[in-house]
Amino acid sequence: MRVKDEFKQDALFNATIKLVNEIGFVASSVSKIAKEANVSPATIYVYYENKEDLLVSTYMAIKKKLGAAILSDFDPQLPIRDIFRNLWMNMFVYINETPEYFQFTEQFSNSPYSDLVDKKEVEKSFEPVMKALQNGIEQKIIKNVEFDILAAFMFYPIYSLSNKRLCANFDKAEKNIETAFNMAWDAIKL
Amino acid sequence: MRVKDEFKQDALFNATIKLVNEIGFVASSVSKIAKEANVSPATIYVYYENKEDLLVSTYMAIKKKLGAAILSDFDPQLPIRDIFRNLWMNMFVYINETPEYFQFTEQFSNSPYSDLVDKKEVEKSFEPVMKALQNGIEQKIIKNVEFDILAAFMFYPIYSLSNKRLCANFDKAEKNIETAFNMAWDAIKL
Repeated sequence: MRVKDEFKQDALFNATIKLVNEIGFVASSVSKIAKEANVSPATIYVYYENKEDLLVSTYMAIKKKLGAAILSDFDPQLPIRDIFRNLWMNMFVYINETPEYFQFTEQFSNSPYSDLVDKKEVEKSFEPVMKALQNGIEQKIIKNVEFDILAAFMFYPIYSLSNKRLCANFDKAEKNIETAFNMAWDAIKL
Repeated sequence: MRVKDEFKQDALFNATIKLVNEIGFVASSVSKIAKEANVSPATIYVYYENKEDLLVSTYMAIKKKLGAAILSDFDPQLPIRDIFRNLWMNMFVYINETPEYFQFTEQFSNSPYSDLVDKKEVEKSFEPVMKALQNGIEQKIIKNVEFDILAAFMFYPIYSLSNKRLCANFDKAEKNIETAFNMAWDAIKL
């Protein structure tokens, strides 16, 4: 039974992302998502309270997957620059492997559903990153500025460079990804 | 007559942005946009070929307005750092004054309509910025890397810092905007 449940939840997760990316949040009804996932609408309500819950849970699941992916080889003993280089490279690979997830999260972040997210819960998936930043600030390696500003340079440039529609000419050779990391590091280092 | 025409086009421009932000690209039909703009559907076809043309033209108009806003005090005689500081500050102010435009362009950039945009035409609105970057590279003030990478650090962080939903805690005091500019400059300078 458990295997079957997870299979259904996976199907709902993928169907929600596919449909929202294709027709938007408003047009993506519970019944259309159920049809896309090949489950009955009643099944959705076994797992989720309502459409809002399904959308917010999908967003949280993507954030959790992203956290796990970028932290897969996390080692707090490494020099701080190396820690952030690994995070950068992992994030670049993950976003490029799963562009549909990021099309969803970018739309989601610009929608009112975003206000329903428990931000503390999202932050849990990135706790080691926050700790590494804090450690870098204390050791006077990273600039002592607000976390939002550090993230704007350390993580958001990856979103624009990974977006084929924004950066059609960007050659994702490892050399260029490394160049971009060096610039991110120049931005945040003291 | 001309005044009336411009009034109608402005109404269509605002209605398109409002409706797309509220219900998404797919659900925003020509007839709904006409209703929102208080014009007859036939009027839309006087100005635009079809829905695609209306959406792409709206995107182009926003890009043109952004170009005019950030270049309002452009002076190629200034030191290059000052040129970019002015661009940064102007862009920050403009994006924060017109968040609905950027909600539209971010959604647009993630949609298939984005493929219909004449990128050369968009670039025309930002030609002095490109020239200033080129000049900075030649004078060995700015790193000699692809334009997409420079833009990812010089302009995209503003989008994330301006997004209230992404950066709810970011205090948009001038001091913080200046701090963020200094980091952008650290990223792109040689």
